[in-house]
Amino acid sequence: MKIKVIIPNVGMARSTLDQREAMLKTYARPDTVISVDCIASGPESIEGDYDEVLAAPEIVERAVAAEREGYDAVIIYCSSDPALAAARELVSIPVVGPGEASILTALALGHRLSIITVLEETIPGNVGRYYRLGLPEWRLASVRSLGIPVSRLRDDLEQTYAALLATGRRCRDEDGAHVIVLACLGMAGLGARLQKELGIPVVDPAFVSVAWAEELGAIGLVHSRISYPKPADKVRVSLCRSEPTKPGPREGGESEAAQR
Amino acid sequence: MKIKVIIPNVGMARSTLDQREAMLKTYARPDTVISVDCIASGPESIEGDYDEVLAAPEIVERAVAAEREGYDAVIIYCSSDPALAAARELVSIPVVGPGEASILTALALGHRLSIITVLEETIPGNVGRYYRLGLPEWRLASVRSLGIPVSRLRDDLEQTYAALLATGRRCRDEDGAHVIVLACLGMAGLGARLQKELGIPVVDPAFVSVAWAEELGAIGLVHSRISYPKPADKVRVSLCRSEPTKPGPREGGESEAAQR
Amino acid sequence: MKIKVIIPNVGMARSTLDQREAMLKTYARPDTVISVDCIASGPESIEGDYDEVLAAPEIVERAVAAEREGYDAVIIYCSSDPALAAARELVSIPVVGPGEASILTALALGHRLSIITVLEETIPGNVGRYYRLGLPEWRLASVRSLGIPVSRLRDDLEQTYAALLATGRRCRDEDGAHVIVLACLGMAGLGARLQKELGIPVVDPAFVSVAWAEELGAIGLVHSRISYPKPADKVRVSLCRSEPTKPGPREGGESEAAQR
Amino acid sequence: MKIKVIIPNVGMARSTLDQREAMLKTYARPDTVISVDCIASGPESIEGDYDEVLAAPEIVERAVAAEREGYDAVIIYCSSDPALAAARELVSIPVVGPGEASILTALALGHRLSIITVLEETIPGNVGRYYRLGLPEWRLASVRSLGIPVSRLRDDLEQTYAALLATGRRCRDEDGAHVIVLACLGMAGLGARLQKELGIPVVDPAFVSVAWAEELGAIGLVHSRISYPKPADKVRVSLCRSEPTKPGPREGGESEAAQR
Amino acid sequence: MKIKVIIPNVGMARSTLDQREAMLKTYARPDTVISVDCIASGPESIEGDYDEVLAAPEIVERAVAAEREGYDAVIIYCSSDPALAAARELVSIPVVGPGEASILTALALGHRLSIITVLEETIPGNVGRYYRLGLPEWRLASVRSLGIPVSRLRDDLEQTYAALLATGRRCRDEDGAHVIVLACLGMAGLGARLQKELGIPVVDPAFVSVAWAEELGAIGLVHSRISYPKPADKVRVSLCRSEPTKPGPREGGESEAAQR
Amino acid sequence: MKIKVIIPNVGMARSTLDQREAMLKTYARPDTVISVDCIASGPESIEGDYDEVLAAPEIVERAVAAEREGYDAVIIYCSSDPALAAARELVSIPVVGPGEASILTALALGHRLSIITVLEETIPGNVGRYYRLGLPEWRLASVRSLGIPVSRLRDDLEQTYAALLATGRRCRDEDGAHVIVLACLGMAGLGARLQKELGIPVVDPAFVSVAWAEELGAIGLVHSRISYPKPADKVRVSLCRSEPTKPGPREGGESEAAQR
Repeated sequence: MKIKVIIPNVGMARSTLDQREAMLKTYARPDTVISVDCIASGPESIEGDYDEVLAAPEIVERAVAAEREGYDAVIIYCSSDPALAAARELVSIPVVGPGEASILTALALGHRLSIITVLEETIPGNVGRYYRLGLPEWRLASVRSLGIPVSRLRDDLEQTYAALLATGRRCRDEDGAHVIVLACLGMAGLGARLQKELGIPVVDPAFVSVAWAEELGAIGLVHSRISYPKPADKVRVSLCRSEPTKPGPREGGESEAAQR
Repeated sequence: MKIKVIIPNVGMARSTLDQREAMLKTYARPDTVISVDCIASGPESIEGDYDEVLAAPEIVERAVAAEREGYDAVIIYCSSDPALAAARELVSIPVVGPGEASILTALALGHRLSIITVLEETIPGNVGRYYRLGLPEWRLASVRSLGIPVSRLRDDLEQTYAALLATGRRCRDEDGAHVIVLACLGMAGLGARLQKELGIPVVDPAFVSVAWAEELGAIGLVHSRISYPKPADKVRVSLCRSEPTKPGPREGGESEAAQR
Repeated sequence: MKIKVIIPNVGMARSTLDQREAMLKTYARPDTVISVDCIASGPESIEGDYDEVLAAPEIVERAVAAEREGYDAVIIYCSSDPALAAARELVSIPVVGPGEASILTALALGHRLSIITVLEETIPGNVGRYYRLGLPEWRLASVRSLGIPVSRLRDDLEQTYAALLATGRRCRDEDGAHVIVLACLGMAGLGARLQKELGIPVVDPAFVSVAWAEELGAIGLVHSRISYPKPADKVRVSLCRSEPTKPGPREGGESEAAQR
Repeated sequence: MKIKVIIPNVGMARSTLDQREAMLKTYARPDTVISVDCIASGPESIEGDYDEVLAAPEIVERAVAAEREGYDAVIIYCSSDPALAAARELVSIPVVGPGEASILTALALGHRLSIITVLEETIPGNVGRYYRLGLPEWRLASVRSLGIPVSRLRDDLEQTYAALLATGRRCRDEDGAHVIVLACLGMAGLGARLQKELGIPVVDPAFVSVAWAEELGAIGLVHSRISYPKPADKVRVSLCRSEPTKPGPREGGESEAAQR
Repeated sequence: MKIKVIIPNVGMARSTLDQREAMLKTYARPDTVISVDCIASGPESIEGDYDEVLAAPEIVERAVAAEREGYDAVIIYCSSDPALAAARELVSIPVVGPGEASILTALALGHRLSIITVLEETIPGNVGRYYRLGLPEWRLASVRSLGIPVSRLRDDLEQTYAALLATGRRCRDEDGAHVIVLACLGMAGLGARLQKELGIPVVDPAFVSVAWAEELGAIGLVHSRISYPKPADKVRVSLCRSEPTKPGPREGGESEAAQR
Repeated sequence: MKIKVIIPNVGMARSTLDQREAMLKTYARPDTVISVDCIASGPESIEGDYDEVLAAPEIVERAVAAEREGYDAVIIYCSSDPALAAARELVSIPVVGPGEASILTALALGHRLSIITVLEETIPGNVGRYYRLGLPEWRLASVRSLGIPVSRLRDDLEQTYAALLATGRRCRDEDGAHVIVLACLGMAGLGARLQKELGIPVVDPAFVSVAWAEELGAIGLVHSRISYPKPADKVRVSLCRSEPTKPGPREGGESEAAQR
């Protein structure tokens, strides 16, 4: 199975993307191919609705390109699930939103979950995304933040882990969390250690997303066209010039639907 | 008071925009100035998440420009409220979403409301927007569609009205609606006649939005910065070239926040 | 437009009522006429269900009289919205409940609101009114009280403001409120100053109610007759002798529906 | 145990009230004393909020009198539960609301209930009362009406029963009700026959209310003072002249709290 | 009326069971017969789902036997309501679950309730049972535990009462409870004293269950067969050899439905 | 990875169990080992709460044995998820409930789902299980039944498929389902064909359960001990003599926790 991972941030080096690919293969099926790309037009990180607006156009282009190139599933590598619905409208392969997949997985692990996000400013967005799923307040113990912006999370992983551990303890001891959900892909890889030290399950969105992509792809489950209808053909003016989406071996060009 | 109305569609003639301005002044305060613009980059109409993604970047630019030009409030002229949260993050004047304002107004008029949208494909999005507000199922009688795309709504207003009347009757008689909400700005101006014929309140999003903009602007109520935090300063690459947002007498240029 | 404001308290001097009229005109449209009356039979203030029961019969009489005298809208000047549904049953002009209008307005300003009421004893009633609208727990940060009875709120406005500020800070900092709703008309006029000092929106029920009355009256939106059916003609014995509701130039007599 | 039953209607003959007493004793404990009164000031029946407003002042007076006269519990004999909260504020003996007690009992009998009310116009009020308890939509199968006003229900009991049977069948077969709640005391006594013919439980509010009054009275359970705080002492002008509430052997006078 | 009380614990002496019978008669109707039994196969106390699984087969056998022996109602004497639905499927007399009956009663006494359970480990189960009824978060103030296992609750009643009082105060003062529900039958008999000292209603599950059994039995209300369908006849292999359920004067044998 | 599948029915031939093993391997990872067993003491199928009560004791014994024998995950092969919580209390490897896993997966595929169960009598149980997860009514389009008991589902797969197709069409066309969930493992293997013909996703519980077991096992996610606490050591009398659970190479003996 071939999975395309779209990181909705600009300015990541190819070597960094390769490291992500290696990490994501940790628990994947032996025959799973994972290809990680970032976008060329958008913010350096997603930390709010404005960032999502800027990243979204290229995310959907990339998802369309991935399907055309034969990928079996797409992961939008951000717990905010930016452009998730729009991408699903455009393609007919599974599109995994790590935020959605992590929360749904957590619901099978315990009665009440806490979500850990990066900044105090990103708490309201996480609260909103939880309730948009239709989930009840009694299963959400809390949403807490680390106080570290996305772009700094991986500067010093020990420091990030220390903040995660302190925050996770407050979720468990003060808020009554039974399960922890890490709500930023920048925290990827720290879940297993945190789970061991906290003694309660910690959902690491990176690995859960790969597992969901594999599961849906293997079984042949794709989002419903009634929920995510194919956009009708009509005039759509795109003045964006996102060079990397020009037709080519890997990234492809603008989708047909996006052209006039 | 000066209100900027942003229509998130491309390709509308200035004369059409002027007609909208005239219509929106019908119930406005005598001293209210209403300025209507459409966008240059995006879809010809908003009928799904992909359309919203394409329109959103210029909507937020326009909102920023409106604030800089001294407008007191902004209306994003679409019941889907595209880019509403992102625009609120960027500006400190009220940003009215007609979908949100219409539903909240309807809640004060009756116990159960029906929403009338354009297409069967846009029903799920309307259902989702209603629940995202946190509202309960028992106050939503139904969401029904006319079967007419946005771009055709004003081709033959009598025919559109006939569809509205037939649909409104089903909402009232089969679904138990106490109040009707028109969920497309293309239906603007047809509410009063429909209300008279159905005998129950019909919320016309165009006029309600102007009233909310006036109310919030007059009283000095603006969205909360905790709900809509100001985006942090960071790298944001925008490859969009939306000419109309270049600095100028009316539309202004890219917001500072949107530049690198 | 002519708006009748009914204060459901007894014993207010005409000069005090005139001051309220002046205050309410602050943000009103230039051509709006506001007429403020209090009731002659009922409690000195509304601080519970028993108080509402005593005030309700005259409130509905006054609403009926206002309609007969040509008013375009009625405001029941109390955040408990006493007799709101009954008044709507009897008249065909908009009847604004400040509690309802304030909360619906607050929902468009931020994700989570706190309600500030007068006494610890009035907290449960405010909680109940919020949930009766069908709103979800996650959008209600808290309900807090000042510890000042209604009749004392305006004795020393500085002291009342100090209590409001202290309480509002706890709502924002301890309860996570994004927006504050003042839930007593005795707090009218203190919202703007509080909003400035707290840095989050504060909904002042007095001004919001006038704006809603203006909006609904201007656009022609009246409550649904399905939600608020016209009472059938039948025997209704009223042994109340509320002199001010006898027919006359301003207050009018008992409504026909209320007579035998 | 002595139970006072307050019928919130005017104009009932003493002989009719005595019949109600006899009927209510059917399933009561042998030593239970049931005393039934109607009010002198109010509507001939409760069929909306305006009717409740007119009946409420005397209901609370009667409840206060009952406590003073040594009754152990009060039943407000109407499924709308008019003045229930106000009466609880004033007295320290259990006050049973037949609407509330019937629905709570029904929840222990089956997963989904239907409510049968008198008129189409009283459906919205019943829907509202259900949701005010905080109950979920999935447990409410439907609210249906007989099309017979309260004052006619007992004119021809066979005809009323026939309407109940037809309506109950639709609740069971079309709406998926597992349990039926009769939502008008005028239907009292018809539940057992209906239950037998429908084959699902039918909650008859009259008998359930007596049982709740007995249960609460026997065990010593009274409503919480935090939910229903004792009204503070203050000016309350009552211009009502409801002769029957003057002090006397059975009806008592105005409560102290209600006097100036 | 004859009520069978099934205690789902093993190893209780007949003298202890007789004491329970005596206690349960405190508030019962004079003519009510109460017969208390415990089970022979299962755990010594119910403190989790595994305990319920072990106790359930004999609980349902006992309920079937009780009906065959002419009992008018059954009480499953545990606030976890183990095997409640299964027992209802098998018998056509009322089966009272003390947890369900207590919470429904509490809802008529105040707006918000707190539940007191035995152990921290039993809190999640109590939270779950509350929400399974479909009740809303805003009516649940908290679930707290005493830190005393079921088997120790009655070793030193003064110590248990002291823990209840301390916990009840926290529910009232820190969590905002208006009503307390005792969620273990081992706390039976301590409610009245606690209620007096806390000043808010305390629902004692033992007495409330007897009252519900009497009420349902007297009025003739039994659970709905649509909610609790009679099990179809089919192969059911039971390798359990629970001697006490062999046919006999009091306990009866395996139900027919349970045989092959 | 080694997965133990426990079918909670009695009387299945080893050859039938082997066929299930073969079917379940269809989409599994190449290195996954799947071992399928049925129980020796319980009903021939799970179609209600009584059936669950009878099957539960051996299900938990089997789960304990599986862990002891080195299995990495357990699947309780029934959409009712019988004994799911109890099994999780006892073991520290993932225990997958097909009902829970199917619904959570469906939530990521579309906005509204319909559940197809076997009998009209099993509809209420399925409704209850959905709401117990805390999910909202608006995401549940309907629960419909085939009218075929579990034991007959695989007698004539074509006839079962025809019933599924007819029922699925009604879910999609009359109830507005966007996704279908098959709620009986007896329907396993028919999902893909149904999905193709209906044009909307169909969640087949068998394959989804294997995928969840693989995912949780691979990533190292196990249920939370706070939600599912380890049962305390205490007296538990088990009079069941379920021979197959005696210690042995494959099934193992009674768990220690289950012994006295």
